[in-house]
Amino acid sequence: MLHLDADAKDPFYKQIYEQIKQEILSGILPGGTRLTSTRTLAKDLQAGRNTVENAYAQLVLEGYVTAVPGSGYVVTPLEPDLRAQTPGVEDPGADGFIQKKSGPGQYAYNFDYGTLGSWAFPYKVWRNLTATVLMEAEEMHYRNPALQSRDEMQGDRDLRRELAKHLYRRRGVNCTVDQIVICNGLQPALSSLVRVFPSQWRAVALENPGYRRARTIFQGNGLRLCPIPVQEDGIDVAALSASPARVIFTTPSRQYPTGRVMSIQKRMALLQWAAECRGLIIEDDYDSEYRYKGKPVPSLQSIDRQGRVVYLGSFSKTLSPGLRLGYMVLPDGLLDTYRYAFAGYKCSVSWLEQKILARFMAEGHLEKHIRKMCLLNKKKHDTLIDAITDAFGDSVRVHGQDAGLHLLLEFSGGETEAELVERAAERGVKVYPGSPLWIEGGEKPPTTILLGYGTLPDDRIPEAISLLREAWGKTPGKGGRRSRAAGAGSAPDSAPDSVPDVTQGR
Amino acid sequence: MLHLDADAKDPFYKQIYEQIKQEILSGILPGGTRLTSTRTLAKDLQAGRNTVENAYAQLVLEGYVTAVPGSGYVVTPLEPDLRAQTPGVEDPGADGFIQKKSGPGQYAYNFDYGTLGSWAFPYKVWRNLTATVLMEAEEMHYRNPALQSRDEMQGDRDLRRELAKHLYRRRGVNCTVDQIVICNGLQPALSSLVRVFPSQWRAVALENPGYRRARTIFQGNGLRLCPIPVQEDGIDVAALSASPARVIFTTPSRQYPTGRVMSIQKRMALLQWAAECRGLIIEDDYDSEYRYKGKPVPSLQSIDRQGRVVYLGSFSKTLSPGLRLGYMVLPDGLLDTYRYAFAGYKCSVSWLEQKILARFMAEGHLEKHIRKMCLLNKKKHDTLIDAITDAFGDSVRVHGQDAGLHLLLEFSGGETEAELVERAAERGVKVYPGSPLWIEGGEKPPTTILLGYGTLPDDRIPEAISLLREAWGKTPGKGGRRSRAAGAGSAPDSAPDSVPDVTQGR
Repeated sequence: MLHLDADAKDPFYKQIYEQIKQEILSGILPGGTRLTSTRTLAKDLQAGRNTVENAYAQLVLEGYVTAVPGSGYVVTPLEPDLRAQTPGVEDPGADGFIQKKSGPGQYAYNFDYGTLGSWAFPYKVWRNLTATVLMEAEEMHYRNPALQSRDEMQGDRDLRRELAKHLYRRRGVNCTVDQIVICNGLQPALSSLVRVFPSQWRAVALENPGYRRARTIFQGNGLRLCPIPVQEDGIDVAALSASPARVIFTTPSRQYPTGRVMSIQKRMALLQWAAECRGLIIEDDYDSEYRYKGKPVPSLQSIDRQGRVVYLGSFSKTLSPGLRLGYMVLPDGLLDTYRYAFAGYKCSVSWLEQKILARFMAEGHLEKHIRKMCLLNKKKHDTLIDAITDAFGDSVRVHGQDAGLHLLLEFSGGETEAELVERAAERGVKVYPGSPLWIEGGEKPPTTILLGYGTLPDDRIPEAISLLREAWGKTPGKGGRRSRAAGAGSAPDSAPDSVPDVTQGR
Repeated sequence: MLHLDADAKDPFYKQIYEQIKQEILSGILPGGTRLTSTRTLAKDLQAGRNTVENAYAQLVLEGYVTAVPGSGYVVTPLEPDLRAQTPGVEDPGADGFIQKKSGPGQYAYNFDYGTLGSWAFPYKVWRNLTATVLMEAEEMHYRNPALQSRDEMQGDRDLRRELAKHLYRRRGVNCTVDQIVICNGLQPALSSLVRVFPSQWRAVALENPGYRRARTIFQGNGLRLCPIPVQEDGIDVAALSASPARVIFTTPSRQYPTGRVMSIQKRMALLQWAAECRGLIIEDDYDSEYRYKGKPVPSLQSIDRQGRVVYLGSFSKTLSPGLRLGYMVLPDGLLDTYRYAFAGYKCSVSWLEQKILARFMAEGHLEKHIRKMCLLNKKKHDTLIDAITDAFGDSVRVHGQDAGLHLLLEFSGGETEAELVERAAERGVKVYPGSPLWIEGGEKPPTTILLGYGTLPDDRIPEAISLLREAWGKTPGKGGRRSRAAGAGSAPDSAPDSVPDVTQGR
């Protein structure tokens, strides 16, 4: 902040000159920045306008600043952009764009998970709804609409109401508006849940393998991790019962990353475990909207009669991971505890985006959007499965097909994940090792590679896979396509005939 | 979620009919809701369309649903709106609007603090920037812009860069882009800071009186509170040194709620305390943009040479409390600890709103907006002070004038805060007791009333104060206006002449 010192030996103009010069040299004022107008600065500093003009004149004289007719005084570009200088977080551009040419540290194809193609965001509708919501808000007299999100600690009521309907229709979730808490995604949800655990709960059970970002939260909050093996039909409930944990984080509808569906027997056993130990089940229903074959699997919460399940979801896989819009459904029994623990807290989600999303849902856009996304993702999924089967045949095992936005490839040829990742990188394809999803100290992880396809356009997939084939030097095995494909059974049919139907449905 | 059970004795149409009926009776489907089209539902359930049509026909027959030509099947209004039924969070409408008629539980005037008038939000500009940002994002190929906020755990780089400039110019804050963390406001900021405290820090020092929402966070995280008395020139540093606390939460530029400014001597002593005990100072610069008289007071962070100050701010007082947009500036020494503690965390602030705000700042809108807000709030402040002085003269002491968005009235007539609040309420004026801002176990609080004026329009203020005068039955004392007004000294002059100047500045 510029300031003038009446006692300093330097005259005011000199003080202004020196301080602005420092701002320019330190990069605070990068090249191209317009300086505050002399009139405005004079007012701010309660100084004479001539004083400021003299200071600016000096800066121009020494070349720090250029006087641009019509647009005032502009900082002369002196040095590289601040951004270029500052170290730290990697520039998202670096491997952000798939169409970027392959090269050192760059990738022609990126199979990362948890991202979406830009086509996945409903730009036009969102733009229009924003305008509508803001125009309506502007008509409120006196009070900034902001207030509403302060009063409603659990989030906007209209949005929670739409969610209650949506979750019931789509996922069978039984809840009232009051059980719903809007939050900034899975991690904030877990961070606040940890706060309402009974103090004697010092351990948390996690599926092994499982979702790392959840593990991060529990560890960060000083909880001991109890890795529970994942079997073909879901977690090993016996191992869970043997563990000291009274709370488990689980993905019943589509186990992450294996894609396995928890059987109804396992679900019942899990609910019984919770009832007996008076424990808690945290159900992460992370990309349940996407099932390309067979009927959708209802949520675990929908069959919970004991109020032992907390249901978590978000819009990261349907709209955009960057909106940071998620929610949790608390069992009635936990509601008072939660409200007590967070009394005096504000809802931390933007009032504006909550209102926009509520309308997006109320007007049926979300339903349409999900149908569209399902169709597009099914197409990608089918293309990917076919390409993989053609390229690798029996030599890799494919986990988690028929749903979601990723696959897990299991290798048994003795190569290491590091080798597989590196060889893919050499051909400009970024793939991700699976073993970090296994908890250290648990069972030894198999050799797996995670392929996320939320971002890759389907017409690029065959090319990407053929590059992987070169990289990994596999040859199609005998025994017919997909014969050993694991997960939800036989391969999906591309079913082109279903396309017109679904589009009619939109 | 509707589902069909092939083994059930009921035919499919009956199953559909029963389930929809339940949804209607349970209020999941309120009156007026359009049912999914028969074609769509048939597809969802993989059932015949006739089956669905039969189910709908039955619902129409029994009056649950009405067939509306052109718009399909609509639920017949049966019962009060879900929202009316659900208890819990108070409807913001209830005392939300100032122009609402006075009545039981309602207020003609509400002096609450932490809210803003709706005129405080730049609707049009925000609308336009949203459109621009979304259109630009749409042009990115393949990748949903969402990704960016995932990579940048501390928040959008453009926004942080604008903040670094803004905070330096306005508040003298010295920092690089890398020291800034974007967050969902003060409370999330404090919650994460607590995580990086050394484990031996079990106590936190707080100004007494002070900001309750901060206290809530520290208590919620199991820290012991050490109340530090606030003197005329800021907190009692001796008392702080005597306390076990190694970290303090403080409001140096405008102590909340007394409005006192921490003297430079106190600031130096505080910084020295932190250096000696290797402690941390959390500076909440909460409404520093508003100073109506004299020069703005630079932040404490600006004179910290030891890297012992964490600077916190938000846009809640300038744009909207509901956007939940805040930031912290971490000292270099804390940066690695913070990044280590939150490795694997995503930034929890919407990518979209960060981009919009970054542009809002880059294009100079924020500067203009703040000037406008200062002007409007100064007018309100002056009107309020004049009205209070005319109404109560010497009989109340006014704390915290010349800045901010609230005043604290101190009473010495022996009346209790409860009486004052109740008598005001009887006349439809909502005011807030001051004593909850004092920490229990600290010094006994005086009788004070908090008047926030962020929401009240200035032309309503005299009326509101005259109602308070009736309520409290005060008469103007002798000894001239404002003679005993405390805080930043003598009263502000309305300075009408300054108005045209400032508007020119915009």
